Amino acid sequence: MKSLLIKNSSILTMTGRDKPFLGDLLIEDGRIAAIAPAIEKQADTVIDGKGMAAMPGLVNAHNHASMSLLRSFSDDLRLMDWLEKKMLPAEARMTKEDIYWGTMLGAAEMIASGTTAFADMYVHMDAVAQAVVDSGMRASLTRGLVFLEDDGGRRLTEALDLVENWTGAAEGRITTMLGPHAPYTCPPEPLAEIIALARSRGIPLHIHLAETLEEMEKIRARYHRTPTEYLHELGLFQDNHVLLAHAVHLTSEDVKRLAGMRGGVSHNPVSNLKLACGIAPVREMLAHGITVGLGTDGPGSATTLDMFAEIKAATWLQKLASTDPTVLPAEQVLRMATIESAKLLGIDGEVGTLEVGKQADLILIDLDKPHLQPVHDLHSLIAYSATGADVDTTIVGGRVLMHKRRLTTMSWEDVQREAAQRASRLVEGL
Amino acid sequence: MKSLLIKNSSILTMTGRDKPFLGDLLIEDGRIAAIAPAIEKQADTVIDGKGMAAMPGLVNAHNHASMSLLRSFSDDLRLMDWLEKKMLPAEARMTKEDIYWGTMLGAAEMIASGTTAFADMYVHMDAVAQAVVDSGMRASLTRGLVFLEDDGGRRLTEALDLVENWTGAAEGRITTMLGPHAPYTCPPEPLAEIIALARSRGIPLHIHLAETLEEMEKIRARYHRTPTEYLHELGLFQDNHVLLAHAVHLTSEDVKRLAGMRGGVSHNPVSNLKLACGIAPVREMLAHGITVGLGTDGPGSATTLDMFAEIKAATWLQKLASTDPTVLPAEQVLRMATIESAKLLGIDGEVGTLEVGKQADLILIDLDKPHLQPVHDLHSLIAYSATGADVDTTIVGGRVLMHKRRLTTMSWEDVQREAAQRASRLVEGL
Repeated sequence: MKSLLIKNSSILTMTGRDKPFLGDLLIEDGRIAAIAPAIEKQADTVIDGKGMAAMPGLVNAHNHASMSLLRSFSDDLRLMDWLEKKMLPAEARMTKEDIYWGTMLGAAEMIASGTTAFADMYVHMDAVAQAVVDSGMRASLTRGLVFLEDDGGRRLTEALDLVENWTGAAEGRITTMLGPHAPYTCPPEPLAEIIALARSRGIPLHIHLAETLEEMEKIRARYHRTPTEYLHELGLFQDNHVLLAHAVHLTSEDVKRLAGMRGGVSHNPVSNLKLACGIAPVREMLAHGITVGLGTDGPGSATTLDMFAEIKAATWLQKLASTDPTVLPAEQVLRMATIESAKLLGIDGEVGTLEVGKQADLILIDLDKPHLQPVHDLHSLIAYSATGADVDTTIVGGRVLMHKRRLTTMSWEDVQREAAQRASRLVEGL
Repeated sequence: MKSLLIKNSSILTMTGRDKPFLGDLLIEDGRIAAIAPAIEKQADTVIDGKGMAAMPGLVNAHNHASMSLLRSFSDDLRLMDWLEKKMLPAEARMTKEDIYWGTMLGAAEMIASGTTAFADMYVHMDAVAQAVVDSGMRASLTRGLVFLEDDGGRRLTEALDLVENWTGAAEGRITTMLGPHAPYTCPPEPLAEIIALARSRGIPLHIHLAETLEEMEKIRARYHRTPTEYLHELGLFQDNHVLLAHAVHLTSEDVKRLAGMRGGVSHNPVSNLKLACGIAPVREMLAHGITVGLGTDGPGSATTLDMFAEIKAATWLQKLASTDPTVLPAEQVLRMATIESAKLLGIDGEVGTLEVGKQADLILIDLDKPHLQPVHDLHSLIAYSATGADVDTTIVGGRVLMHKRRLTTMSWEDVQREAAQRASRLVEGL
């Protein structure tokens, strides 16, 4: 692969060790080869980063990207109305091709708003994987598993096929997990089996946890436990790398149960706010050493996949909940959206910070805008004022997926047309 | 003034009576002359609104725009540290010229993010007024008044001069208010005098109220009352049109005290979140018939002047506080950012909805973006997914202030350069 030199940008490494500095960044063979105040080396391509901030690409730790076809279809409804009257009937009509184009729409939005990697749980995951291949993004893919009816093992077979067929595909950009959906859709026996299987094969797990008060009540009624306690007793947090989505309703005992776990929690504040779920105890989890990253959840609930909205909502909510404006300062919440989320996907050795040797997954943010001037503090400015629309360039593994706001790996016209047509069909009459 | 025809956009009138519809909008002499599915009339200028949503310009009901020079200068600090160690020393250095350029920077951001009118309270208001004239925006201007030391009446003279010299200026785009700063900076005697003066001359008032718990405690210690009770007993809510900023900490008795007031409350959720102030009881105020609009507060605290962030934060917080996702649905919160805010400024007869006869203050939002496709529900899409960067065109009184994202009334290069230079000087050594 050719070399790429980014000149004169303000570099935010997100390692937690560096102040932003003006410099150059050299990419060779898809990896960061050098970061320095001035790199004189020749490169095949040179990007002028003047007036821009370079930072690691954002990592969206919990998504159902193809639900972008249902964006804005059913807002301002109670969760059960939203789910049963709108989402489930529309999703029941989704074909594999719908899911491919929905994921392409989601990928277009993610690339255009600076996200370079995402974790996705859904169905027809071959189609999702194909969209990852075609869009050039990086992703951790999971076939969601519910065990409320006997399907003769079909779903589990699909989940294992996904792991078998796609792990390491797309030049290593695709990884996979096993995805028991949630405590309330997974009874103890099949859940324990999946956990044991995942442990024996070394496959990470992705599961929803404690999103709503209804879930708390349901699990209490069924098992006389909190959802976290239920998973804990089934052995989920022994050894397995686990990506927990939401974790809004945790008792202080629950937080202790998660302390020391491998993996961690995807905090999805926009979805939690829009569905009125509550505020996840992020500060307490961090105090117990639990890794907390950020995710959007699906655009069916969050409407947008813009991680800059999650960054703002995450710090706002923790400040509010603790009545302390110093909580989750800008740099820390930006790390949550990058390296901490990367840890959840198990790819923090490869991406999530700007460091020599890592994959070149990074973005350039154009600061030449009224809301991003003057520049007193870049972390603050980006956390509190930037939006996805300020991203000028998005690079994954050294490949430019967007430059000067133009997508390079897909035809936006095709994606827009396919998405509009398919979306109309999905919601007709609902 | 020439005529302007906007063709084929999706029109959101914000009257509360209409569903979005595809149509044309004709502007003559700065006012909306016609709105219809198809207008065949010739016009001097035609704008193609295909793929765009036309809606009233956003009205920012509480701002200190020139503090944009201090954007991102002092985030993640406790309010008193923020104020005393950072903001006040930097503000003490501000010259009239700084305030002009700071307001121009704020105006650039507001125009670029779809805001057409704002209420501003600050000092050196002649400079702010000049920036309103030059930028082409609409504004309600207030000289902030604190009565903590004897200034020989200087501030009050400046406040009355502002009212005298600028009310109705800039072809009527400028209106004025009197601005006693807050309960804790205005003792009873001078405050009662201002209230009486405002009432006798028919001048509206703009005042901060109950922003923090510290304010509650301070007023309780001094006057054995809540801040709202304090203002109520001084007669503020008898007859006067009052724009209250914040109103975060209200008892249920306080809400009743405000019921029936003229004017209403500017809810500023982003600033309240960032400074960890709390959640204003918007739902209760609305239930008592109090007008609630939206504002950003100054960019010193809110960082950004993007009203789309306030729209999201406002609905999220009320859903969260009431654990009910149906609260403040998309259309209602969009009305808060337009016609309800316009009521607070006293200009709702002229702007805030798209209706024939009103001033043509409106924006076009470009929907041809991944995060704004597909279009199931325009109100939802705009409230939950749009940001200021999606605004393509901003029009005030029929004059185009931005088109295809290019500002027409100012040189962005000049504003950026002046802002950067002045901002550096203001914070040097702090």
